[in-house]
Amino acid sequence: MSDLFLTGIGHLTTNHGDPIRDAVVAVEAGRITYAGTASDAPNQTGRRVACEQRAVMPGFVDAHTHLIFAGDRSDEFARRLAGETYTDIATGGGGILATVAATRRAAEDELFGLASERVWRMIRSGTTSVEIKSGYGLDTATELRLLSVARRIGDELPVTVKTTFLGAHSVPPEYESDRGGYVDLVIEEMLPAVQGLADYCDVFVEEGVFAVEEAQRILARAAELGMGARIHAEQLGHTGGARLAADIGAASADHLDHATPDDAAVLAAAGVTAVLVPGASYTLRSPQAPGAMIEEAGCTIALATDCNPGTSYFESMGPIISLGVVSMGLGVDSALRAATHGGAVALGLQDRGAIVPGAWGDLIVLDAPSPAHIPYRPGTNLVWRAFKEGTAIG
Amino acid sequence: MSDLFLTGIGHLTTNHGDPIRDAVVAVEAGRITYAGTASDAPNQTGRRVACEQRAVMPGFVDAHTHLIFAGDRSDEFARRLAGETYTDIATGGGGILATVAATRRAAEDELFGLASERVWRMIRSGTTSVEIKSGYGLDTATELRLLSVARRIGDELPVTVKTTFLGAHSVPPEYESDRGGYVDLVIEEMLPAVQGLADYCDVFVEEGVFAVEEAQRILARAAELGMGARIHAEQLGHTGGARLAADIGAASADHLDHATPDDAAVLAAAGVTAVLVPGASYTLRSPQAPGAMIEEAGCTIALATDCNPGTSYFESMGPIISLGVVSMGLGVDSALRAATHGGAVALGLQDRGAIVPGAWGDLIVLDAPSPAHIPYRPGTNLVWRAFKEGTAIG
Repeated sequence: MSDLFLTGIGHLTTNHGDPIRDAVVAVEAGRITYAGTASDAPNQTGRRVACEQRAVMPGFVDAHTHLIFAGDRSDEFARRLAGETYTDIATGGGGILATVAATRRAAEDELFGLASERVWRMIRSGTTSVEIKSGYGLDTATELRLLSVARRIGDELPVTVKTTFLGAHSVPPEYESDRGGYVDLVIEEMLPAVQGLADYCDVFVEEGVFAVEEAQRILARAAELGMGARIHAEQLGHTGGARLAADIGAASADHLDHATPDDAAVLAAAGVTAVLVPGASYTLRSPQAPGAMIEEAGCTIALATDCNPGTSYFESMGPIISLGVVSMGLGVDSALRAATHGGAVALGLQDRGAIVPGAWGDLIVLDAPSPAHIPYRPGTNLVWRAFKEGTAIG
Repeated sequence: MSDLFLTGIGHLTTNHGDPIRDAVVAVEAGRITYAGTASDAPNQTGRRVACEQRAVMPGFVDAHTHLIFAGDRSDEFARRLAGETYTDIATGGGGILATVAATRRAAEDELFGLASERVWRMIRSGTTSVEIKSGYGLDTATELRLLSVARRIGDELPVTVKTTFLGAHSVPPEYESDRGGYVDLVIEEMLPAVQGLADYCDVFVEEGVFAVEEAQRILARAAELGMGARIHAEQLGHTGGARLAADIGAASADHLDHATPDDAAVLAAAGVTAVLVPGASYTLRSPQAPGAMIEEAGCTIALATDCNPGTSYFESMGPIISLGVVSMGLGVDSALRAATHGGAVALGLQDRGAIVPGAWGDLIVLDAPSPAHIPYRPGTNLVWRAFKEGTAIG
């Protein structure tokens, strides 16, 4: 939490009104005190950084990741490209369950090491806040270990972390013929155990995974324990997860590849953020979510990496913004806003994702004249400097 | 040109036989002297780098770029996403001609500065050889300036550069109603002027740009002056550029989005390398070239960034390999080989693109256990160390 004074900003995206040219940003004790034209700026004594007409924008808020895991599934990636389906691979012991097996075997320090390398790469590509889900344990001890690692990342790395318990990510092998028993375990044992470690609870609602009614029971218990709700909804088919998210007032409905206009309308009416993850559809070669339709229906949209070892091993938000624009059809400004302000809304981080007085000084300076260069130049990490609560990173 | 000894390689891709586990690579005076298992390795006195089980592969050879230009076309990118076509934008004075206007105004040092920043970013993402085209001058003086800058990049930066004269990239405004006059200028004035500066000559063969017959005349004169031939062929429609490439024994036919099985057969028979540029089709949201069909027909395929400010502002080969695999449907091994050995073949760099005794020591060490992680993790620059002729870069 430092003082900072960014000068000579060629293009300032505040997410609150039009971009400002020839701008400065002042941060005191980690919080933004001024963001506007240089001519109206107050005197400032903090560390000065001359931006030399570069663009400045809020740091990225990545609202959906599964980044704590062990094992290597690059072989499966090649197999899927050679024609095997996600379901084929999952049925053969690959997919999520391969990662579960490797993750259960990994000690906490190993998981922390692997995950912090990933998060450092995220930070160096401009991410200042990240959601981290559990869900590769599927037993109480491992789920607790994953959430502890997620908390430790937030404590030890310069990034804001929100944690999500995703025990209902898949049915573990030992409950293969007793899904109801596993749902009971999630509700009766896991949820009370993770209270305090998990800010949110998420359920993978999908044909063959968890049903709407099961998700409803799990998320109701989570709410009693003080956790917010998120739902993996309408990814591989249409099963009603989006409507459930609206019914229970979830913080977000995520994926939404098969969302209908009716889904979008109820999500918008309920104030549920639509978290769109174009890296997954890219990797799976499946149609992208109807992002523009969802946005036009009035939803707040967020873009996220969905960082995971099976279907979207993206660590950086730049390529995700590019996919949001080029493949999903979002406008450039919409995609940039979704990757910052939208993510902050999805995670309940009201004082992040915008450069306005009072907000935390989570800022990135781009080596480019405008943030439109992010989708325009998808292969290049354009982050020139990053600041977390006013402190330079790296 | 140094001595170097890479030890503890977990996975060595030589492009000559199967990957080698537990390998070492020795380089003396810039050339590879040994690449094989550690147990059979000779003693070596050069700088030792412990790879700690990381993967090693040849540096990328990016065989198609237009990376020397001035100006900013990020606005046009947004306009095209909002529905304007490439042809609409070109007709309205945008497109290539906007870059031509800005590039003509730019002095050589400015162009060198802009281009070397781009090439440094390429080098840091693993590119060790690059083709650079002119084509944003479209007058003799500017085309000469662009090729001089390209040569200077090869002289001053740690990268091998092959230069290509692309005067026939577009018809400049001053010849708008006299395309034949411009073709004569290219043949009679420009080609003799660029002799010695250009290794290759290229023509954009496309409906409304240059016809096959014009390309034939231009490339015949170029051949007399000692330049090899490349052709922008079958990108936006099918106009016969691929067949011309085969007929004249061009070094490469590039793009090939609309290539037919007959085109692939004649290219294969003539030994013309197919240079595929999935970044352009990604950016233009058009169907990818039939890369797998072209490969199966027996062509050597190369993958390249097509780095340019209008249709493919990619500087890094990693995302291109990902697009080659995920969007174009190439196999993982094929795409990696196309980005290294294929590029080297396309550029006539027989002693690069493979890790075999006698070849130059252009090598990258990946922070990953195998090169399959490159397409598997498209948002991350996995280059841990890069070496040009045995010397560490950066």
